[in-house]
Amino acid sequence: MIDVKSALNLVLRHASLGSKTQEVALKAALDFVLAKDVISEIDMPPFRQSAMDGYALHMGESNSYKVIGEVKAGDAANPVLKAGEAVRIFTGAPVPDTANTVVMQEKVRVNGDKIVLVDPLNVNQNIRPNGEQIRSGAIALTKGTAINSARIGFLASLGITTITVYKKPTLSIIVTGNELITPGIKLSFGEIYESNGVMLSAVLSELGYKDTRLIKVEDDYNQTKEVLQKAINNSDVVLVTGGISVGDYDFVGKALNAIGVEEIFYKVNQKPGKPLFFGKKGEVSLFALPGNPAAALSCFYIYVYPLLKKSEGAYKTQLTRIAMPLSVDYSVRGNRAQFLKAQVEGSHVHILGGQSSAMLSAFGDANALVYIPEEVTEIKKGEGVETILLPAK
Amino acid sequence: MIDVKSALNLVLRHASLGSKTQEVALKAALDFVLAKDVISEIDMPPFRQSAMDGYALHMGESNSYKVIGEVKAGDAANPVLKAGEAVRIFTGAPVPDTANTVVMQEKVRVNGDKIVLVDPLNVNQNIRPNGEQIRSGAIALTKGTAINSARIGFLASLGITTITVYKKPTLSIIVTGNELITPGIKLSFGEIYESNGVMLSAVLSELGYKDTRLIKVEDDYNQTKEVLQKAINNSDVVLVTGGISVGDYDFVGKALNAIGVEEIFYKVNQKPGKPLFFGKKGEVSLFALPGNPAAALSCFYIYVYPLLKKSEGAYKTQLTRIAMPLSVDYSVRGNRAQFLKAQVEGSHVHILGGQSSAMLSAFGDANALVYIPEEVTEIKKGEGVETILLPAK
Repeated sequence: MIDVKSALNLVLRHASLGSKTQEVALKAALDFVLAKDVISEIDMPPFRQSAMDGYALHMGESNSYKVIGEVKAGDAANPVLKAGEAVRIFTGAPVPDTANTVVMQEKVRVNGDKIVLVDPLNVNQNIRPNGEQIRSGAIALTKGTAINSARIGFLASLGITTITVYKKPTLSIIVTGNELITPGIKLSFGEIYESNGVMLSAVLSELGYKDTRLIKVEDDYNQTKEVLQKAINNSDVVLVTGGISVGDYDFVGKALNAIGVEEIFYKVNQKPGKPLFFGKKGEVSLFALPGNPAAALSCFYIYVYPLLKKSEGAYKTQLTRIAMPLSVDYSVRGNRAQFLKAQVEGSHVHILGGQSSAMLSAFGDANALVYIPEEVTEIKKGEGVETILLPAK
Repeated sequence: MIDVKSALNLVLRHASLGSKTQEVALKAALDFVLAKDVISEIDMPPFRQSAMDGYALHMGESNSYKVIGEVKAGDAANPVLKAGEAVRIFTGAPVPDTANTVVMQEKVRVNGDKIVLVDPLNVNQNIRPNGEQIRSGAIALTKGTAINSARIGFLASLGITTITVYKKPTLSIIVTGNELITPGIKLSFGEIYESNGVMLSAVLSELGYKDTRLIKVEDDYNQTKEVLQKAINNSDVVLVTGGISVGDYDFVGKALNAIGVEEIFYKVNQKPGKPLFFGKKGEVSLFALPGNPAAALSCFYIYVYPLLKKSEGAYKTQLTRIAMPLSVDYSVRGNRAQFLKAQVEGSHVHILGGQSSAMLSAFGDANALVYIPEEVTEIKKGEGVETILLPAK
């Protein structure tokens, strides 16, 4: 049995960095990770841009200017202003080369084709210089950056339409257990509905991993071995649920051994998720997650998520962790590290009821997991705890 | 000009609650909101379930038990135990009706067909009672709950395959401005690439709003009016970017007026996003977002997101807000409320550089927005600030 930090370090160390890349349309690039730096091919803004509706001036001696024309956003006009002359200008329009400042329309009095300034002026005010955001040839986003909607907007503003990203790992989810029945069919005595596979497919899909196969296998050694072997042949990452335990009818451990999956670790000193297995066969990573659904989902966020991000080449591999004061006193039984379903809101983090690893209900209400290291047993109300923010919308 | 709180209240008050519902497959239900309570049709667990690998006992006088059989997960067997008898049992298996406790295998010594207990026993230990998670007939999830992957798992465990959800609003995004060029085409002087529409489509898609049309319109009164009218006819929510200002060539305001869109508010005392317009035409909500992309995205998260959630019937309409200590002293110029791109990590929230509303780069790095109310101008390092967590993965 190893501790949480060692387990996470081993996962990250053994993640196989995907070297395969692909071109994707920017519009379809959400959640992909850049496989090379994106270089801007333009100055942004590409010209000196008016930040206001008002007047562009060639500054002169007096505070009165003659308006000789206008420039709207999108106009290619570049009128020549002499000192003391102005053009009407609108937000986003190119400031004429011969203008050296822009005055807001609220700051002038209009008098026929003349404007009179209300306040003194400075050079270059209300002008966004070209290249203010980025210069042509500069790096817009570096390799390893995950694409979100703001970054899509930013790259679109640079005229970029396709980017090079890492291919996402292909995944297989294998659910084991004779007791597991597909939802929709009536249960007989001793049976329960399969939910881990459905849940893991959902969370993977939510995170942008669409290439996921879900396979159900009976508690049968030969079938288990065959399905595992096939999944390893066809996937970058394999998630087994139903776990491996010392139970006489848990065939997963034996099959993994027979196939030659190298055990990196088995069992972590944590609650939930103690019987977590992580192994490698060549470049393929394999997790055997606990059969209890809340434990499986915890292990997914804490260990599988970083592995996936690392193997996608992302520089941010883990969920955001923040310190938040606990809303009530909390004491821990036993000496395992804890991942507790919790809600952050306002000034505190609140640990939810229903922490049983068999129960998913609290996980649905959680937007965070509180991590309590193994050496800690008592936390006072208001004390800061490490709070892992779950992906949320 | 109104303040941030009033603006948000007006948005929520005027959100048209969608009454249309649809059935969706549970697997495809991510990000939908329940339109009616989901009732469990089963006890979960449906039977007394062993929480361990071990032995189920009919407790007797001595600490020695005769093992008369075994029950695996998925077995329909229900062997009859007399006092002093035991069956081998595995995690998830049904505990025989005649057994009254389960002992972990680590806590017995095996001796042929006999087991001897190491420690004293209690009734019902290591047994998950039927209905422990939920009883048949009880509410599993209430109307207004947004479906996430844990909830998909939970409902799957109850055998549920379809649920009734609110239809998502249909959206039109209208981008205005002669200066806007589709990425991929070479810019001429005075032109920039259209990015707001691409960005808003991406953020909507990320949040699960797939029924979105993106329309570009020239700075022309008749065309603007026609496109707006059509969007209002065909959508539940219309987002215009390019905004309405007093500029002589901003046709949006005039067209909205001509179409009969009722102004709920125009201009909010905030930075970025001062020139925000919100209006209604019948049940259709319309936002004119600022043309500056970072301002548009801020306004999206602060105002459009709650409107969408409210009109989907969600009980949680806003992004999670937490108090976090600021990493450095910060002072605000002017008297507008601020929404600052920021990063939460560890014990502090860090306000990012590059807050200009024309720049998206910082927004890409942000996982939060810090809200500074209008009356606040100075915040000391370590002081708590209202921190709005952005949807993140």
